[in-house]
Amino acid sequence: MEIKIQLTDCPKQKTKDSELGFGKVFTDHMFTMDWDKENGWHDAQIIPFGDISLSPACNVFHYSQETFEGLKAYRTPDGHIQLFRPEENFKRLNNSNKRLAMPEVDIDFCIEALKKLVEIDQEWVPYSEGHSLYVRPFCIATEPNLGAHNTSMVKFLIILSPVGAYYASGLNPVNIYVEPRYVRAVRGGTGFAKTGGNYAASMLAQEEAAAQGFSQVLWLDGVEQKYIEEVGAMNVFFVLGDEVVTPELRGSILPGITRKSVIEILKHWGYKVSERRITVDELMEAYKEGKFTEMFGSGTAAVISPVGLLRYKDYDMTLSDGKIGELSQKLYDALTAIQWGKAEDPFGWTVKVC
Amino acid sequence: MEIKIQLTDCPKQKTKDSELGFGKVFTDHMFTMDWDKENGWHDAQIIPFGDISLSPACNVFHYSQETFEGLKAYRTPDGHIQLFRPEENFKRLNNSNKRLAMPEVDIDFCIEALKKLVEIDQEWVPYSEGHSLYVRPFCIATEPNLGAHNTSMVKFLIILSPVGAYYASGLNPVNIYVEPRYVRAVRGGTGFAKTGGNYAASMLAQEEAAAQGFSQVLWLDGVEQKYIEEVGAMNVFFVLGDEVVTPELRGSILPGITRKSVIEILKHWGYKVSERRITVDELMEAYKEGKFTEMFGSGTAAVISPVGLLRYKDYDMTLSDGKIGELSQKLYDALTAIQWGKAEDPFGWTVKVC
Repeated sequence: MEIKIQLTDCPKQKTKDSELGFGKVFTDHMFTMDWDKENGWHDAQIIPFGDISLSPACNVFHYSQETFEGLKAYRTPDGHIQLFRPEENFKRLNNSNKRLAMPEVDIDFCIEALKKLVEIDQEWVPYSEGHSLYVRPFCIATEPNLGAHNTSMVKFLIILSPVGAYYASGLNPVNIYVEPRYVRAVRGGTGFAKTGGNYAASMLAQEEAAAQGFSQVLWLDGVEQKYIEEVGAMNVFFVLGDEVVTPELRGSILPGITRKSVIEILKHWGYKVSERRITVDELMEAYKEGKFTEMFGSGTAAVISPVGLLRYKDYDMTLSDGKIGELSQKLYDALTAIQWGKAEDPFGWTVKVC
Repeated sequence: MEIKIQLTDCPKQKTKDSELGFGKVFTDHMFTMDWDKENGWHDAQIIPFGDISLSPACNVFHYSQETFEGLKAYRTPDGHIQLFRPEENFKRLNNSNKRLAMPEVDIDFCIEALKKLVEIDQEWVPYSEGHSLYVRPFCIATEPNLGAHNTSMVKFLIILSPVGAYYASGLNPVNIYVEPRYVRAVRGGTGFAKTGGNYAASMLAQEEAAAQGFSQVLWLDGVEQKYIEEVGAMNVFFVLGDEVVTPELRGSILPGITRKSVIEILKHWGYKVSERRITVDELMEAYKEGKFTEMFGSGTAAVISPVGLLRYKDYDMTLSDGKIGELSQKLYDALTAIQWGKAEDPFGWTVKVC
């Protein structure tokens, strides 16, 4: 499929890197493509970034038929721009779309479209240390029909947002508590899909955590409410003696690409990594025995997010003396070095744009 | 708050009643109102129905911060137009909004706005038997920000759609199976809220059911997968001997307004109605004993939807000889008579528009 390109007549003034924050500033262009039952995917185009016009009856507004992805483009010291594992993102998008009864995309075509878009907006990839260009591909159901059925029309978009360093002043450990009431997802539901409903379900818990001075919540499984699933909107890892544990993927957990990369790096380094079920009780036992020493979240935005304090009911577990754990720092350094092209990429994870 | 009114310059041609279907045709006008953290709700207006223009970064497209309601306006034999229990809908909208960390609306104001809107578009309320005007109030999060947090901007809309008779040729029993894999909602989640994510999670199950010749699925609870929750996007009732049973509201079931009305009518008639937990096993036992004789769904669109066949694994339960059950018909007749103003309304459920 050919991509029609219409460049903007009035490029926007760029925001200073120091004022970027996350997901608030957008580049000059976006990619869009439409799907319907008769024509499949069509009308691929790169156009000036701007509002989209939709019927208020579109299914996305009523039945949340929407899926998304998140990845980043990085500026390397030798002047290139590169992406991190984009194929994994579009594979996951297709898995999400299947779960939501929405059509799959052509992965190679989407990567080409993304590369083209980033190339056009390459001056928007920040030059400052730790800054990057956040990439948000997403699908929304656009059939203007209030019947609750799988949609016959979908729009796929890619928008780009230059973002600041997640940790302005070095890795910063966060405080977390084990969420006692709200549930993010359950097996048989949509937890493994990157779809809006999972996030909508978590907003209130997040708001209540913030009001108590916590950064995130630790989600338990929806069935027994004792197995650990995720932390906030990230995957989670625990260092227990010589074992690094992360909850296994059982349908209710997002299969994170940073999660996968962390596992692969740890194995490459010779660590013992287990993807298995783990309960809060096991964590508490290990903590009392002095074996639970480190905990961190993993995700595209933060890469590695060390946890300094974990509260379960009235019991506080202080990890790595409330500082950044040794392994967290090591993983963060290794991953970001590959992402920003400051170190060799032995895994073949990076994809050059231009 | 004053409602600004801007009437359309070019009223649309009306679709023939026989070609309406459900949720595909919209009237000439819609109501919109905006909210932000600084100003609260503002800019209430009735404007020509048309596309809305939004940033592709709006949270509704990514994190499904959206809630909705569904009710109907009916044309009565004496020439009035009336609504059915609108206050209940806006109360529920507020409960949904609280769960989604979105702002509540002023219920009285919304009812006034709805009445005004329906009055303006009154010629769109169909005259044909069994036809009505479907009313869809909904809230969407409109902050153009990819951060996953509770939104600082919301748009509330009411759109109107003239709809055909749900049963073109009398009440029609449907075939249902007990959903073995997918889960709609779990306690601690958003099941009780009328929010898109619950519907998104159900599309695939619905599609698979349709492919096997079934109309709907019967959802089981997310924890033990043995207690009955809902049928498709409706609440469900079972006639077991002299008891009418409907699953109790425990956080994962939508508190249906038709459900509530059915319970109130049945009690008014002297039936024994129980809101309690009920397992598929109990249904099968009762069926074998000849006590499980009737089953129906309840919801705004269908009012009462009789079930002719319920399949659980390989076991088929034929209900009311695959025909319309006696109580289903009686409830359908009573409810629709009140809704269309053909019978007295001893409960005070109807609200006159004009």
